[in-house]
Amino acid sequence: MINPTPPPPPSPRKRFRELGLSLGRFKTGRYNAITDVRGVRVGHCTRIGRSHRRGVNKGAIRTGVTAILPNEGNVYMDRVVGGGFVLNGAGEVAGLTQVMEWGMIETPIMLTNTLSVGAVSEAVVRYMVQQHPDIGIDKDVMIPLVGECDDSWMNDIGTRSILPSHVVQAMESARSGPVPEGNVGGGTGMITCDFKGGIGTSSRKIQTGGGDYTIGILVMSNFGERKDLRVDGHPVGRILDDRFKEIAVRRTNYGSIIAVLATDAPLMPNQLNRLSKRVALGIGRAGSYAGHGSGEIVLGFSTANRVPRGGEKRVYKMRVLQDEAMNPLYEASIECTEEAILNALCMGEDMEGINGNFSPALPLDEIVEILSKRF
Amino acid sequence: MINPTPPPPPSPRKRFRELGLSLGRFKTGRYNAITDVRGVRVGHCTRIGRSHRRGVNKGAIRTGVTAILPNEGNVYMDRVVGGGFVLNGAGEVAGLTQVMEWGMIETPIMLTNTLSVGAVSEAVVRYMVQQHPDIGIDKDVMIPLVGECDDSWMNDIGTRSILPSHVVQAMESARSGPVPEGNVGGGTGMITCDFKGGIGTSSRKIQTGGGDYTIGILVMSNFGERKDLRVDGHPVGRILDDRFKEIAVRRTNYGSIIAVLATDAPLMPNQLNRLSKRVALGIGRAGSYAGHGSGEIVLGFSTANRVPRGGEKRVYKMRVLQDEAMNPLYEASIECTEEAILNALCMGEDMEGINGNFSPALPLDEIVEILSKRF
Amino acid sequence: MINPTPPPPPSPRKRFRELGLSLGRFKTGRYNAITDVRGVRVGHCTRIGRSHRRGVNKGAIRTGVTAILPNEGNVYMDRVVGGGFVLNGAGEVAGLTQVMEWGMIETPIMLTNTLSVGAVSEAVVRYMVQQHPDIGIDKDVMIPLVGECDDSWMNDIGTRSILPSHVVQAMESARSGPVPEGNVGGGTGMITCDFKGGIGTSSRKIQTGGGDYTIGILVMSNFGERKDLRVDGHPVGRILDDRFKEIAVRRTNYGSIIAVLATDAPLMPNQLNRLSKRVALGIGRAGSYAGHGSGEIVLGFSTANRVPRGGEKRVYKMRVLQDEAMNPLYEASIECTEEAILNALCMGEDMEGINGNFSPALPLDEIVEILSKRF
Amino acid sequence: MINPTPPPPPSPRKRFRELGLSLGRFKTGRYNAITDVRGVRVGHCTRIGRSHRRGVNKGAIRTGVTAILPNEGNVYMDRVVGGGFVLNGAGEVAGLTQVMEWGMIETPIMLTNTLSVGAVSEAVVRYMVQQHPDIGIDKDVMIPLVGECDDSWMNDIGTRSILPSHVVQAMESARSGPVPEGNVGGGTGMITCDFKGGIGTSSRKIQTGGGDYTIGILVMSNFGERKDLRVDGHPVGRILDDRFKEIAVRRTNYGSIIAVLATDAPLMPNQLNRLSKRVALGIGRAGSYAGHGSGEIVLGFSTANRVPRGGEKRVYKMRVLQDEAMNPLYEASIECTEEAILNALCMGEDMEGINGNFSPALPLDEIVEILSKRF
Repeated sequence: MINPTPPPPPSPRKRFRELGLSLGRFKTGRYNAITDVRGVRVGHCTRIGRSHRRGVNKGAIRTGVTAILPNEGNVYMDRVVGGGFVLNGAGEVAGLTQVMEWGMIETPIMLTNTLSVGAVSEAVVRYMVQQHPDIGIDKDVMIPLVGECDDSWMNDIGTRSILPSHVVQAMESARSGPVPEGNVGGGTGMITCDFKGGIGTSSRKIQTGGGDYTIGILVMSNFGERKDLRVDGHPVGRILDDRFKEIAVRRTNYGSIIAVLATDAPLMPNQLNRLSKRVALGIGRAGSYAGHGSGEIVLGFSTANRVPRGGEKRVYKMRVLQDEAMNPLYEASIECTEEAILNALCMGEDMEGINGNFSPALPLDEIVEILSKRF
Repeated sequence: MINPTPPPPPSPRKRFRELGLSLGRFKTGRYNAITDVRGVRVGHCTRIGRSHRRGVNKGAIRTGVTAILPNEGNVYMDRVVGGGFVLNGAGEVAGLTQVMEWGMIETPIMLTNTLSVGAVSEAVVRYMVQQHPDIGIDKDVMIPLVGECDDSWMNDIGTRSILPSHVVQAMESARSGPVPEGNVGGGTGMITCDFKGGIGTSSRKIQTGGGDYTIGILVMSNFGERKDLRVDGHPVGRILDDRFKEIAVRRTNYGSIIAVLATDAPLMPNQLNRLSKRVALGIGRAGSYAGHGSGEIVLGFSTANRVPRGGEKRVYKMRVLQDEAMNPLYEASIECTEEAILNALCMGEDMEGINGNFSPALPLDEIVEILSKRF
Repeated sequence: MINPTPPPPPSPRKRFRELGLSLGRFKTGRYNAITDVRGVRVGHCTRIGRSHRRGVNKGAIRTGVTAILPNEGNVYMDRVVGGGFVLNGAGEVAGLTQVMEWGMIETPIMLTNTLSVGAVSEAVVRYMVQQHPDIGIDKDVMIPLVGECDDSWMNDIGTRSILPSHVVQAMESARSGPVPEGNVGGGTGMITCDFKGGIGTSSRKIQTGGGDYTIGILVMSNFGERKDLRVDGHPVGRILDDRFKEIAVRRTNYGSIIAVLATDAPLMPNQLNRLSKRVALGIGRAGSYAGHGSGEIVLGFSTANRVPRGGEKRVYKMRVLQDEAMNPLYEASIECTEEAILNALCMGEDMEGINGNFSPALPLDEIVEILSKRF
Repeated sequence: MINPTPPPPPSPRKRFRELGLSLGRFKTGRYNAITDVRGVRVGHCTRIGRSHRRGVNKGAIRTGVTAILPNEGNVYMDRVVGGGFVLNGAGEVAGLTQVMEWGMIETPIMLTNTLSVGAVSEAVVRYMVQQHPDIGIDKDVMIPLVGECDDSWMNDIGTRSILPSHVVQAMESARSGPVPEGNVGGGTGMITCDFKGGIGTSSRKIQTGGGDYTIGILVMSNFGERKDLRVDGHPVGRILDDRFKEIAVRRTNYGSIIAVLATDAPLMPNQLNRLSKRVALGIGRAGSYAGHGSGEIVLGFSTANRVPRGGEKRVYKMRVLQDEAMNPLYEASIECTEEAILNALCMGEDMEGINGNFSPALPLDEIVEILSKRF
């Protein structure tokens, strides 16, 4: 049903800062990526090809999977503190309920298309059971974290083309260092404000409470209409809208954005919930009004404390950053989210998808021109 | 990997009321089942057989899938009002986030084991896309509802033995009328207070606010330790504990219960959330203290109003039962939940599972004897 | 408007355990009271007298204030970790929003009647500003915690008879050791299952995770109808209903119960939220179905960690009990809540209130008789 | 303790649109105020004077009360559908718990300073009992809605200078039509991004789902630091920061903003909760990152359906706008919130407060100049 094609050639696109632009007042980490939080690794499997289905005029596979591994070790054994926030629950992060209850993450975090959530979840289970054959015997079962957006404007989503091998590839290719962005992994067929979106990431360095901390955000960005796009507050979407008005755009609610926040700041679960809310404010700053059908969900984790399993150490010491020192993290998470979304847009490339639908890349020259006039 | 065996012979077990016992002050519906709410249908696929895995001494498949179809029609086209409550989120109902956001249900509700949530979700997607090939083209994507409990004390859960055909079988065999209970469907390998549990259901007829309404509950019950069991308040578990102390029991947290409430009372989403909370109180009355690892999640829906899709009727009239008239529904939902759990226990049969683990059926004679002394 | 009368003579009533009865499997603390958690102090101011209002046939003041001070020191300076759970939000704990956000408590916890919440809040503010005149200048403002139930079946609630001096008296009389129960403080005019309720308390000692911990519960109990009452699961209310059917009972929703849980177990805010949910299960076990108009709200706090203020210590070490070791706390909180409610009932005395309404005390002899037949 | 002074002379300040500026793409209502929603009325009582306290160098009263009456009638008898959202719960809207539970509002909505919440609540109770002497006898008790921000940078908040007569004055002076803004009512001493803030309001007309609807927002705005302020996305605060750097600003977290949304669109409670979340996004657009100590709380209500009381009509018909038609309301609520905040700033006047603290008005000429350069 699907003829895989080789990954696209190295991108001619540039990240937001490579355009000579910047956003916000905090410094970025070395790679300006979620991987600047030590131990966090990201891997993608990108699926681009043709599909063949009755009723589909011109079939196209434009989808994939992205894996975020929260730490260097085996997260099932070496659990991190977790939290999240649902800005608009018209979407799914399978496994979220348990994160919110336990304040802890013990599986990889996967991102994919809406109709492949089940397939990806099943594949992660298969993989984890292979790694830990005593899961369900001597070890606890687990519930994989799988977030989704709807890429059906580009992708023949009904073919459900994500296979277990793709999921394994995403997990096993996960690396620290630079993160491929744009039309890759789960973001392959995603669209943002009617420009080609996808995966984007950014990071910030924060000094607060006597310590140096990093936060990193990775988004699978798929929300909004063209008019909504804001770049550092500027109504870029409105300005560009006229020029692109000839290009057909998706009409229904199939937006969404999943944002994953990582930090090495020592936070408790409720502090991660609070921080995740500020990521939602960043999504709003970038132009989202969280449309009825746009699932906007944030997951957050902190690598600073290890969550012991039963039997190890029944009372443990947790390092905790005072709430009164959280403000710089709150502020930084907003600008970091905005920049992650912009990186998804700046790195997203023109794409033709199912039924000839076309999603144009954000025109970088014009962004530079518009932004050059700002204060 | 798995040698399917025929379903067990007709059960010698009896439902709670067939023992001459009763519970609560409201009348039951005709079948004393969730199917007493007009249009609700239930189907099971039961998987019993052997498994072969390295490291597993004596493999056993003891699992399945249960499907609840909320109405007579196609729930994707003919959506019902929905809600829910998370008593303890150490579990998963995939798709719950969207129900809580939209207050609406548009897919079947599936129940299975923890490690098959992904497989079941994928199979439901496949099935719905077959039915509606234009999902993702002209029709909105959807997110299946799949709840789970951990049946690994009986079932070789790591084999993930639920296949798409089993999921289809559960959906296509869904019927109104009497509902098989005990070791069937998703409940096949489930345990309750260290007795054999599984699927149970019950219903209540309520007169309030000038109308006649029905609520029905179906549970996949898998929570608790023996000492915790309460039958209409009586500490039956404590009384029986001694007699069963020779039988090895599961040690870890792998309990859980998923409860699904259906009603024809005309309720808004926030009213269904409130009603779902009372189902949680019923779970507590039956003996649960919602242990750390016991995922206790309630889903609720009302068939009284149809939720139109965009384009049909932009302002619609919804019939709403006044909150002041809700109390009988609240009260009835508690006793109905208790009885649904008891039906799972009364209909559950002795089972030997993986590695020779044994789960005894609740001894019915002794229940009758104990309860006969109550006031 | 009100003629204060002296407090009632020493009660002829007995606590549940003084009847030779017990409930649950955990041991109680020394006083079987919330004050068994070291540092917790409780004080009451009881208001019994006559009122004079047009339209009120026979005026009666039957109300009061109860103060719970979470630790030995000044809670504003020496903050405790806090959390809570709203079972049914048809009520008010003023200040709850901040506790849920910050996971921290920095004021006394006050309990009173519905229409005096504002007056009590104002009085606490006045008192705290007297103690810390630089509040609002150099020190942060604060929001007092004030919970309420509706005592209008006994009390001429419209007279709002709680004055600042009563609030101060409750706070300044707060003591560790035995806690007066029944018709005292905020519980003076409260009713439970149509018997005289009010203030009740209980405690439990728990060994878990290698440590010895105490939990204590104090309730202001005002919920339910007679038929609902359960004593250790037994349908005592149903059994007694007939005998009391001549006595007029309140007809509307004005139930409610506020429960406050204290513990010395080292818990994070999200763990206190979880524990508070189990207190709600205990309320359900005692007979509540959380009626539409019955505000059922739980506040919880842990004295094990001090929450530093900004500027003191920006990263602090918090001791945390593993979630896997929480189950005994969960289980104990249920039975402790049930017994606290029973103590409110057992210690509540016959009361005649406004317009001649009469609230009978729970008949202790019959409770003993009924319970003596249990298993 | 306080010498009341007459209200300030008519303001030389101008609303945002009176500057020739505009924001967003929707039209405003007639008064560009929350009162454009038919039936909504607003009243203020402004308290400006001197205070005398030990330890306070130069006492100043700069506070007040604002009352929002949700409909033309008596809201206690004629209840409206309600909802809300807590962006950051470091604050208080007394009574919020009940609104979130019942999805309904039955009292006026009051706004004041943090330490006067209790006093205002008590005064509203007193007033409502005078109006309905049978509250607590034949009629249900109620819980007033009182929101707060901390005005202690201007106001000697510890004096708690709001008396019952001020509360009555705010309620009884409530009118439809134009709404006084800036240093009035509850907003008298409030500050926004280190400029003088206070009360602001705005409205939008929306066509959706075949109907014409209005939303109106009123804010009591008191959040942020100067650098944070955004005007239609433009970093106005950053631009102005240098010029104002000589003026001392408050150092601690005592921000906050309470926003009240009114609409005549026919919404259910859960839809109002969702809409309230978008108001929070508007607060974020205006520059808030929801600082740790900044209580950011949204209340919403719809006047389209009347919520009957028990006994009237047990099953009622509610008109409901389809969720799929909500997007324009979501989008409009964001720009409306931004403009309400800007109106608070544009109408706020220079103020000297306690201890000589000075809060400068937003320089309107420079706003016009900066915004004139935007696209």
